Amino acid sequence: MTARTAKVNDDLIAALGAIVGDRLSVAEAVREQHGHDESYHPSHPPDAVVFAETTEEVSDIVKLCAAGDVPVIPFGSGTSLEGHVAALNGGVCIDLMRMNEIIEVNAEDLDAIVQAGVTRKQLNEHLRDTGLFFAIDPGADASLGGMTATRASGTNAVRYGTMRENVLALTVVLADGRVIRTSRRARKSSAGYDLTRLFVGSEGTLGVITEVTVRLYGIPEAVSSAVCPFPDLESAVRTVIQTIQMGVPVARIELLDEVQMDAINKFSKLDYPVKPTLFFEFHGTEKGVVEQVETVEAIAGDFGADEFQWATKAEDRNRLWQARHDAYYACLALKPGSKGMATDVCVPISRLAECILETRRDIDESGLLAPIVGHAGDGNFHVILLMDPDDEDDVARCKAFNERLIMRALAMDGTCTGEHGVGSGKIDFLIAEHGEAVSVMRALKLALDPQNIMNPGKIVRL
Amino acid sequence: MTARTAKVNDDLIAALGAIVGDRLSVAEAVREQHGHDESYHPSHPPDAVVFAETTEEVSDIVKLCAAGDVPVIPFGSGTSLEGHVAALNGGVCIDLMRMNEIIEVNAEDLDAIVQAGVTRKQLNEHLRDTGLFFAIDPGADASLGGMTATRASGTNAVRYGTMRENVLALTVVLADGRVIRTSRRARKSSAGYDLTRLFVGSEGTLGVITEVTVRLYGIPEAVSSAVCPFPDLESAVRTVIQTIQMGVPVARIELLDEVQMDAINKFSKLDYPVKPTLFFEFHGTEKGVVEQVETVEAIAGDFGADEFQWATKAEDRNRLWQARHDAYYACLALKPGSKGMATDVCVPISRLAECILETRRDIDESGLLAPIVGHAGDGNFHVILLMDPDDEDDVARCKAFNERLIMRALAMDGTCTGEHGVGSGKIDFLIAEHGEAVSVMRALKLALDPQNIMNPGKIVRL
Repeated sequence: MTARTAKVNDDLIAALGAIVGDRLSVAEAVREQHGHDESYHPSHPPDAVVFAETTEEVSDIVKLCAAGDVPVIPFGSGTSLEGHVAALNGGVCIDLMRMNEIIEVNAEDLDAIVQAGVTRKQLNEHLRDTGLFFAIDPGADASLGGMTATRASGTNAVRYGTMRENVLALTVVLADGRVIRTSRRARKSSAGYDLTRLFVGSEGTLGVITEVTVRLYGIPEAVSSAVCPFPDLESAVRTVIQTIQMGVPVARIELLDEVQMDAINKFSKLDYPVKPTLFFEFHGTEKGVVEQVETVEAIAGDFGADEFQWATKAEDRNRLWQARHDAYYACLALKPGSKGMATDVCVPISRLAECILETRRDIDESGLLAPIVGHAGDGNFHVILLMDPDDEDDVARCKAFNERLIMRALAMDGTCTGEHGVGSGKIDFLIAEHGEAVSVMRALKLALDPQNIMNPGKIVRL
Repeated sequence: MTARTAKVNDDLIAALGAIVGDRLSVAEAVREQHGHDESYHPSHPPDAVVFAETTEEVSDIVKLCAAGDVPVIPFGSGTSLEGHVAALNGGVCIDLMRMNEIIEVNAEDLDAIVQAGVTRKQLNEHLRDTGLFFAIDPGADASLGGMTATRASGTNAVRYGTMRENVLALTVVLADGRVIRTSRRARKSSAGYDLTRLFVGSEGTLGVITEVTVRLYGIPEAVSSAVCPFPDLESAVRTVIQTIQMGVPVARIELLDEVQMDAINKFSKLDYPVKPTLFFEFHGTEKGVVEQVETVEAIAGDFGADEFQWATKAEDRNRLWQARHDAYYACLALKPGSKGMATDVCVPISRLAECILETRRDIDESGLLAPIVGHAGDGNFHVILLMDPDDEDDVARCKAFNERLIMRALAMDGTCTGEHGVGSGKIDFLIAEHGEAVSVMRALKLALDPQNIMNPGKIVRL
């Protein structure tokens, strides 16, 4: 059994038990499960895991930890990809998945308040009869607290924005246990510093998010999805770029290269052509969708696309998008036993073709098994590097590739992470990207968490 | 002549002169002009005004001021409304209006980088032949630096968002003179704390914004504007609410009560019916605009609206919207010699009718001359209180009214300021609105400006 760090002593465990009763575990299996996410990053189990049910409990737990100078690691669905939940210095993991209450749906205001452990699918299931939906959809069925903490997005971001645009307010437990609400429900406000956006993307390093107020949208009158194969990667990417530059309000425009198409065919038992492919979705009025489709079909045709294969029935669309959401798992299945290193650069759309094509060449020259999939409409794409985490050479080769890719994106005024976050895996790249601005981030971290107990070792090193 | 505060001594003036040459003034008239905005707040002239031309100059000026513990007040077009530019403790005003260069327009990426002194009209004039436009339009022809600093919005926000959504990155001179860029040009990023959003709305209290990267949009294929009078205020407001709740993507939906209509008729020499009125604008494809118009005409008809009066020619539309943008000045002209106190609450749309109708009753019962005008689609509206700043009773009556209005909005989960900002005028209301969260804002301010030299006395008191 992994040794417990000295600070998490019997007194602290007893005091935690007094708050949460038997919703507390120091069992090896539970700790191990909470020490890692879905990525290649090594596991660092916390010393104890508590399963919180209320904001007040979280506040009491954090106060105890602050008094003992003990790290606090918030935990949601565990589906992050940059080692976000690893307890690098031990400490107490607060599992928030039992905080899964949908507190209120304000249908008239197109918003909802949920506890942090509510998942995106749970919320949409709950909304089913309201005519509304929550738009942000990372691959995993992640918790809304975790999605807020990593500033997640997904396939709909090109039309509906990321968590940055879709979170209206947060309830946060600060590093000293105080509880704040960051904003009111009004759609806009100039009332002081934007604390909501400060905590969106803060990865548990500034406080524990316990409630999230999110924006909802009306389910559009008409929805159409289509899959369209292209003769080569460049034609697919150029179709994306022109669609965006023409201002067509596509709801989704996703790029999958032939390696990724092969992977999802196998994983999801489909038989799409094994070619570079775009997955589209169009939302609007009946007439509006027809107009969008005509425009995009014309663009794709100019770039030599094959026919669009339409999915208009809800179940067909769901199958299509579930396959897209399972892309990461489909990649892992290509090489059983492997772990995935998912790169995540995002560049201005004018540089996307150049960035993807150079990256494809780099993959080919490196001899890596590495599908490309991405939210091309945002300029964001992933290369899924399949590697053996126990093979040092393999890991080194993948890391070198990732570094080349990130430097390529930064040189194009892009970012090292479009939606996965920094965690511990991208700390050095953050400095490459932001330079002096990282010192401002460090000052903010110190101001709000002077003891460095909130998910230490993530985003910035102190 | 107003006495100079002790810290701004001859040595400092000489050192400033060494940086900016003769772009420096201590003349009474120049200082006075830089000591106030367009509101009723009393003037507090700075000790000196420097006219900066580059980020490097701003950095050097701030370093000098930091060394001397001297306040720094950034100044744009001077059109703010909450005393934002008043030099409450004296100090050096940095006028940024000579930083008016449009640095680059990246048409393919739908963005532009401008210096802080570029105004919204200047940018749109520059974009004229590109097919693109910048969407945010407060009443005044404000500078983009100032609009960023106050998190401004305007009539288009219901469709295109506020400065929060339309600023992609900033160059900022920090309180110690260091220069950072807050973000890259990629459309989304999860790379660390959201410094861009932290500085948007920071009102010069955390640093001086010197360059702004903004989002642009393609000019829509079809644009139609219309004016529509209603039998009473409630029908107009309910038309707005239903339009928003149905998800019609209106570009503009502005409410003006009969007092405001009378004011703009007089000021802009128009002859609209003196009734509660909505100003609309629809953007989209030809067919899309027709669909939107049909939907909104049906809603308005249900609420007993008169006919829509259309403006389809660009010059007619411009006249219509210029009249709307001049609403504040039209109000001031109703009572020559008066100053305006512009209230600025914003509430969830479900509470808008209740909030406006209670406010209208309050105006009537108070015997105030106070038109209502607002961005009703966002839940944001202004009451323009016309007062004699030298009449204590008048000022007190207006302040009491504003306080009642803000408390009404806060009780509805609204905000004290939708778009004007806090300045010095709303500091106490900020505490009413955010409670404990204000202590977090104070911690951020202290972390980034430990000497409290950046526009002191605004947003938070230390």
